[in-house]
Amino acid sequence: SNSVRKHRRNLPATRMSLLCVKVKRGRLHGPSDKFNTYVVLKVQNLRSTTVTRRGNEPCWEQDYMFEINDLRKGLVVEVWDKGLIWDTLLGTAWIPLKKIEHAMDEGFGTWWILNSEVLTKGDEICGAKNPTSHKILLDTYFELPAGE
Amino acid sequence: SNSVRKHRRNLPATRMSLLCVKVKRGRLHGPSDKFNTYVVLKVQNLRSTTVTRRGNEPCWEQDYMFEINDLRKGLVVEVWDKGLIWDTLLGTAWIPLKKIEHAMDEGFGTWWILNSEVLTKGDEICGAKNPTSHKILLDTYFELPAGE
Repeated sequence: SNSVRKHRRNLPATRMSLLCVKVKRGRLHGPSDKFNTYVVLKVQNLRSTTVTRRGNEPCWEQDYMFEINDLRKGLVVEVWDKGLIWDTLLGTAWIPLKKIEHAMDEGFGTWWILNSEVLTKGDEICGAKNPTSHKILLDTYFELPAGE
Repeated sequence: SNSVRKHRRNLPATRMSLLCVKVKRGRLHGPSDKFNTYVVLKVQNLRSTTVTRRGNEPCWEQDYMFEINDLRKGLVVEVWDKGLIWDTLLGTAWIPLKKIEHAMDEGFGTWWILNSEVLTKGDEICGAKNPTSHKILLDTYFELPAGE
């Protein structure tokens, strides 16, 4: 965390915000032995992937951070079910960056419904539609810089 | 491969094709110690990821297959550079499924230029633009079913 903040201070002109995302857990609709899932986070041209967890109540409990320079965009959260030959998308949540609050530290998180389709505008995802019965618990906040 | 073919035969109504993709290697623009990359393949709501390889001439050499039921779509190929905190997109190639030929076995492959942007139509990727200096060698074909 310290090294990221240092890096940000070294970028002179652009105004950067540090987005923190904790991927906590999921509630998936279906029998427990059906699922072996991981989460992909995408924002701007950045991306992170969690470990893969079995069961319909997967606990990923992993922390990620991203340097954001355009608050008009959104965080794309995809839950994928790992298969032997290919992985299958269970659903997508889209979180507009403007709605994410600043905080000093992590919180309890919010449950997001996963959707089966995304909406795009130009060449970017700008929303999601058609809710599935799957949900994901995420804690998202912009880190308040020390001293502000 | 056999189990997939069996599975396909058990699906009565839908007409399925088996898309085979070999992710061979890349030629990335920049110093060798700069890159630690993996490839994500996406088609329909399916997805696979290669191992991560170091260097500006990464050799992934991994085989994937996907059951396709809509030839109007395309194969999305993304090359990601793995970072300590997040991964960064190096570029995307988009291959229309209609252009992929049927074959009995694998071939030498084709070099695809990676692009920095994608084009979308509705909620789907339908192309890519703004070529980068990065390239990827892929062998793609639809498997000819035995006996046809």
